[in-house]
Amino acid sequence: MSKTNAGRFFEDYAVGQELIHAVPRTVGEGERALYHALYPARHAVYSSDEFARSCGLPASPLDDLAAFHVVFGKTVPDVSLNAVANLGYAEGRFLQPVYAGDTLRSVSEVIGLKENSNGKTGVVWVRTRGFNQRDEVVIEYARWVMVRKRDAAAAAPETVIPDLAKVVSAADLVVPKGLTFEGYDFELAGEGHRWGDYAVGEVIDHVDGVTIEEAEHMMATRLWQNTSKVHFDTSSRPDGQRLIYGGHVISMARTLSFNGLANAQMVVAINGGAHVAPCFAGDTVRAWSEVLDKADTDVPSVGAVRLRLVAVKGDVGSLRGEDGKYSDGVLLDLDIWVLMPK
Amino acid sequence: MSKTNAGRFFEDYAVGQELIHAVPRTVGEGERALYHALYPARHAVYSSDEFARSCGLPASPLDDLAAFHVVFGKTVPDVSLNAVANLGYAEGRFLQPVYAGDTLRSVSEVIGLKENSNGKTGVVWVRTRGFNQRDEVVIEYARWVMVRKRDAAAAAPETVIPDLAKVVSAADLVVPKGLTFEGYDFELAGEGHRWGDYAVGEVIDHVDGVTIEEAEHMMATRLWQNTSKVHFDTSSRPDGQRLIYGGHVISMARTLSFNGLANAQMVVAINGGAHVAPCFAGDTVRAWSEVLDKADTDVPSVGAVRLRLVAVKGDVGSLRGEDGKYSDGVLLDLDIWVLMPK
Amino acid sequence: MSKTNAGRFFEDYAVGQELIHAVPRTVGEGERALYHALYPARHAVYSSDEFARSCGLPASPLDDLAAFHVVFGKTVPDVSLNAVANLGYAEGRFLQPVYAGDTLRSVSEVIGLKENSNGKTGVVWVRTRGFNQRDEVVIEYARWVMVRKRDAAAAAPETVIPDLAKVVSAADLVVPKGLTFEGYDFELAGEGHRWGDYAVGEVIDHVDGVTIEEAEHMMATRLWQNTSKVHFDTSSRPDGQRLIYGGHVISMARTLSFNGLANAQMVVAINGGAHVAPCFAGDTVRAWSEVLDKADTDVPSVGAVRLRLVAVKGDVGSLRGEDGKYSDGVLLDLDIWVLMPK
Repeated sequence: MSKTNAGRFFEDYAVGQELIHAVPRTVGEGERALYHALYPARHAVYSSDEFARSCGLPASPLDDLAAFHVVFGKTVPDVSLNAVANLGYAEGRFLQPVYAGDTLRSVSEVIGLKENSNGKTGVVWVRTRGFNQRDEVVIEYARWVMVRKRDAAAAAPETVIPDLAKVVSAADLVVPKGLTFEGYDFELAGEGHRWGDYAVGEVIDHVDGVTIEEAEHMMATRLWQNTSKVHFDTSSRPDGQRLIYGGHVISMARTLSFNGLANAQMVVAINGGAHVAPCFAGDTVRAWSEVLDKADTDVPSVGAVRLRLVAVKGDVGSLRGEDGKYSDGVLLDLDIWVLMPK
Repeated sequence: MSKTNAGRFFEDYAVGQELIHAVPRTVGEGERALYHALYPARHAVYSSDEFARSCGLPASPLDDLAAFHVVFGKTVPDVSLNAVANLGYAEGRFLQPVYAGDTLRSVSEVIGLKENSNGKTGVVWVRTRGFNQRDEVVIEYARWVMVRKRDAAAAAPETVIPDLAKVVSAADLVVPKGLTFEGYDFELAGEGHRWGDYAVGEVIDHVDGVTIEEAEHMMATRLWQNTSKVHFDTSSRPDGQRLIYGGHVISMARTLSFNGLANAQMVVAINGGAHVAPCFAGDTVRAWSEVLDKADTDVPSVGAVRLRLVAVKGDVGSLRGEDGKYSDGVLLDLDIWVLMPK
Repeated sequence: MSKTNAGRFFEDYAVGQELIHAVPRTVGEGERALYHALYPARHAVYSSDEFARSCGLPASPLDDLAAFHVVFGKTVPDVSLNAVANLGYAEGRFLQPVYAGDTLRSVSEVIGLKENSNGKTGVVWVRTRGFNQRDEVVIEYARWVMVRKRDAAAAAPETVIPDLAKVVSAADLVVPKGLTFEGYDFELAGEGHRWGDYAVGEVIDHVDGVTIEEAEHMMATRLWQNTSKVHFDTSSRPDGQRLIYGGHVISMARTLSFNGLANAQMVVAINGGAHVAPCFAGDTVRAWSEVLDKADTDVPSVGAVRLRLVAVKGDVGSLRGEDGKYSDGVLLDLDIWVLMPK
């Protein structure tokens, strides 16, 4: 048993520590097809190489969130195998598209630690970077999780709470090299609404719903090499249910958002996010979006829109109740920047 | 909500109207592998690049029906989102194989309209063409569906019923450029029966059965970017069941037909077809074929066979009862032309 | 019905007979992605083209066991359609990696026959070879199955029992051309244990478990074009259950073994194996390994380890009870050679 990975406990982390995550991964046409089989993915830049080329890219990139899942999945054995809660994301940026044939690997730095007052758990903050085979950063994000202590008697580390931005500044968004929406074909993209048609405060109900199956969420989660037991093994939770990987809900919500946001082509930042409630097979997931902000980018034809993307199960009228708590049925509250044609 | 697509209603169609369907799609090795994972596909031209080359093709094309599903899937948001019934197909022809790397898009023309006497629905006929990235038509077919009216009080359009051929004439079948069965290896293809061994009227029971799972039909249907709610959302039908995309049954029947029709390598025409009864997860699908006709083609080694391909669930003895109605358990009655070595 | 394949019965085999199995298959990026979606596959040589290149290979090969399944799947219609039991494997060797774009086909020779005393069944031994498009053997193995007689009155053939090695000799293992572990990156591979760290007799519990779904095992089994009815059709067994293809359990156990055997990069031999008990959807599969032997190879940086790989469902304490019989819950007892960095 000594040769297997039991995961890190809270006292195994130190601020400044670098975690080199295992198993680089080459992605390609297979991952692209599977992403379209597992999610109702229709954004044209990822669906058509020809459309991507008409937008100045060499070909369709791997879906931004698929790339995110690959980078994230590698961190699980080192960051969240003994996590009891996903607490948040911040400062997520997509710095380069990932193309078929690229090989991704992930490295995290421990940027914060805080033992909880119960002495049994603590919060670990990491900043993770995903690199391609040219050692270029393709994705970076901060994440914090609550992790069990191996030994409640172990001394608490010095508390370090990183100073993380609430929102990625529009000035820090990276428009993929070459991207232009000048010759953008709205008819082929599926909707006529452009950047100027969205107003801050506007809410878009994406209408469609998907009832989730065990086989699907497990295939997706394995594809990203996420090894967290709770997603695969009915004996790992007292209730005998497999917890669906939060990223599966993110991708489901994002792809459902095509209906009303077909031109929100690329995700360029994750400002923050909460996995509000667990999702299980049999749940029917729906999504809505709220426009939180708008900004220009360096490229005249490309605008940025900040969205709150909400996933729910069943019929949920509002994000929060009068008490300020999330309404029953809310699964995900994600804050992202996307790029849209002006 | 105004930004989402509610689909077209009967009064939104006019004869001569051109519908440019959204979201072009690049297909490749991933779709090929998924087709083999989702269906018991074994026809050698699609399984082996080497076999395809020995038949004069540059490589294995994407399965003809997979290409059909991609072209068809794009039409759903514009044609059948508010359809209450699929009424028929006619004049379907496969004009060019689709290869890995090709990008498909679809365009339909409204060719017929007839309001029903109840004033609540009408029949819409469209002719759909699938194009590749070189703007060549790869597939074309006519289809008619019954669509709801938005407003029962809306005036009925002039009735136009298109004159559609009952069967694609053998002279109009297109043999893929370069195709030859001169050096055909019957042993590798799996069966020794050639064109001359099939007699008009002969019935072939394909023996094997597949019990269908929710995850599989949803993955297939998403892969073709078919967005019809009834396939994915248990809340979209009163009975809480997800209706299986009719094309899933078509592909299941066609791939099951390998056993007895292993040399029916390529589908070149869809003469007609009826989705006789709905199919649900848990159903065990079987298939049989009846030889309806035979014809020569321009290529001496390549013969054409017209087949009735029937999919059933459970044990079904005959296509129709004495009353002329389809027997219980019949799911699909499809009329196709296939190419076979002489 | 005469045109369909009813499979061979015991009296259809003769020693020395060559069975040319149908339907060659080109494998590629899609099969690679699906293997990662269907199994928790993480061995770095197959996950990353860059890692594979750092080990002297031109790119990531298709997983050895995926290649095995493709070769094996082709034999089903000719060998095991009427088999009542899988009795064993021997002398399995992986002679060449399979790369994206390779086309595989299979040929078997009948090497043994023995009618059972009941007169209703007999044992058939075959040696199967998988070839690539250059007619090079990539995999070979012997297998024996119990097959029904068509006619109990048919005369028994002369009994021929082949002399099969209990274990592939270490001297006969083939290290893939160019393979070197000199610059091996243990951090990226996921574990620090090398060949010298494993002791004969050591047992490694691989900890993780996967609860299996119908859709997953059927997709995997179809992907290898295995047509055995019992895997797909709930009406093919009296209990209405679909029997999971034994190879699905093999791949599940092998990929679960990453945790503790992350550096057991390549499987080079199957010495023997028993599918001890049937596996069904809903079972949670776990695995453990026992180190049976160790050996050098021709390549100084590459060591060979012989492993017993055991798959179980539920909590199983030991391989066999005091009576020498396999313990309840044991699914698979496989004996393999793997390559590991020294």
